[in-house]
Amino acid sequence: MEKPYVIGIDMGGTNTSFGIIDTRGEVIRRGAIKTQKFAEADQYIEELHATLEPLIEEVGGIDKIKGIGMGAPNGNFYTGNVEFAPNLPWKGVIPFAEMLHTTFGVSAALTNDANAAAIGEMTYGAARGMKDFIMITLGTGVGSGIVINGQLVYGHDGFAGELGHTTIVRNNGRQCGCGKTGCLETYTSATGVARTAREMLEMRKDDSILRNIPLESITSKDVFDAAMAGDIIAKEIFEYTGRVLGEAFADFIAFSAPEAIIIFGGLAKAGNLIMNPIRESMEKNVLPIWKGKVKLLFSALNEADAAILGASALAWELKN
Amino acid sequence: MEKPYVIGIDMGGTNTSFGIIDTRGEVIRRGAIKTQKFAEADQYIEELHATLEPLIEEVGGIDKIKGIGMGAPNGNFYTGNVEFAPNLPWKGVIPFAEMLHTTFGVSAALTNDANAAAIGEMTYGAARGMKDFIMITLGTGVGSGIVINGQLVYGHDGFAGELGHTTIVRNNGRQCGCGKTGCLETYTSATGVARTAREMLEMRKDDSILRNIPLESITSKDVFDAAMAGDIIAKEIFEYTGRVLGEAFADFIAFSAPEAIIIFGGLAKAGNLIMNPIRESMEKNVLPIWKGKVKLLFSALNEADAAILGASALAWELKN
Repeated sequence: MEKPYVIGIDMGGTNTSFGIIDTRGEVIRRGAIKTQKFAEADQYIEELHATLEPLIEEVGGIDKIKGIGMGAPNGNFYTGNVEFAPNLPWKGVIPFAEMLHTTFGVSAALTNDANAAAIGEMTYGAARGMKDFIMITLGTGVGSGIVINGQLVYGHDGFAGELGHTTIVRNNGRQCGCGKTGCLETYTSATGVARTAREMLEMRKDDSILRNIPLESITSKDVFDAAMAGDIIAKEIFEYTGRVLGEAFADFIAFSAPEAIIIFGGLAKAGNLIMNPIRESMEKNVLPIWKGKVKLLFSALNEADAAILGASALAWELKN
Repeated sequence: MEKPYVIGIDMGGTNTSFGIIDTRGEVIRRGAIKTQKFAEADQYIEELHATLEPLIEEVGGIDKIKGIGMGAPNGNFYTGNVEFAPNLPWKGVIPFAEMLHTTFGVSAALTNDANAAAIGEMTYGAARGMKDFIMITLGTGVGSGIVINGQLVYGHDGFAGELGHTTIVRNNGRQCGCGKTGCLETYTSATGVARTAREMLEMRKDDSILRNIPLESITSKDVFDAAMAGDIIAKEIFEYTGRVLGEAFADFIAFSAPEAIIIFGGLAKAGNLIMNPIRESMEKNVLPIWKGKVKLLFSALNEADAAILGASALAWELKN
């Protein structure tokens, strides 16, 4: 009989959440552990196993589990390794897929978090039935998962889809954590939005609710709240962010002509505040053949579950 | 028995060349007609048929032909149509694949010229055995054919791979024929190189062989000849062109992590004059994970035959 469940694990720099998921994409059991608590990756996997084991028993034991999918920063699908992740406590190359397989006794696959989100969207979300789309995750960083001909794009080495590190400002661009300057991520991540806020508030003289917050501690959430309250500068920050994203999206469309670009992550909560300027700028910058043709969508996945669902979707594709 | 030959047709704005090709990629018969001579696409196809028929008879008749592949400006693989090609004498949507099929009595497929070049390179050239690469054609325009997971990327609508129209200069960029400004093509096509020459000669005072040529009639060939003769400005024009290409390539790598980027077309003849600055700029702009990892290659196809070979390779993949 086909095994009825998969396990999805979303490893973040701070927390790791996981769930047991059924074929319809329902998370029937869930839990979380602290990623940062473990000095060794072995201990982390052991704790994961200890926490998941009673849940697995509740749903009928490990024989009911088809496999494990994990989304992790710098996860490489081809190797099953996490490789040199700057935001994780463990350095170097760590073979998590193999470790999960050994510890749990079922097949395991691993990819990076944005790829997991794209697979989740294709399996359960807004991209169901699509063969060509691009998922853009707007969080602390900017990630991407690209699907072409119904397949996730991993590239020759497993690292494809780093659209957050395409160059959007060629001269005097902002310094990026990756070592380059002018990367899309430095303008359109949550931290990029906060950075834009600080720059705009320093350059301009007009009034803003945001001036009540110490400059260095403004977050993208503050900008969102201010914009919702009608603050002019806050709205302009979203317009600027959306314009930059739309310019970038136009170039992505020239590459793979996707049916849709799907936005996911914290900034997507800004709704039309961010979507309208993205759409306007994308339509303005795209080649005539694509005007009005490429859908711009928000993720249809429940945000709390999306990362787990995405990772779990990877497990359905495992050959046992 | 497997049919031993295919026909490859390369439709250009001025001329159309064609050949009969065997399984090893040898062009065993060849010919050409003027594209521009025919007011109606029907007449063009009839002339193509009349010219090819005796050659087909020489190799054993139409039963020996597996199919026809055509590379054409604005050719759409999905529909088999040429759609709104600005540089062809026939306007609107023309169903060339269907017309070839009806007239010759064998299956026919069509794609744009850069895609045909990529397929040719994968079948007979520098990309043999590669599953992930990007072909960049540097001619009058800048075209691209993208291969991911061993498949050509057509996108959801058949128009993917317009990398010549990604934006390389966001503010005050050069006007492009597509209606946008700052497109890669306006800087790195043959006409883009000539444009750079005119700008540089006007801005600078120092001596150059190129000053012996009337500003408006300088071509990329003149710049090449001058650079080979040691002209400083001409060499700087190639350095600038290569730098812009390298910056663009770094972004393309972030998208699909190809094993190689392959350069094809007139400008590729400049050899290291263009390759060295491309490589330097690409390595400087690429994410650390790809430094020194992505091959930069020239097409391995004989230039006179490349377009025909590429189109013909399409025909091998036809299901009859």
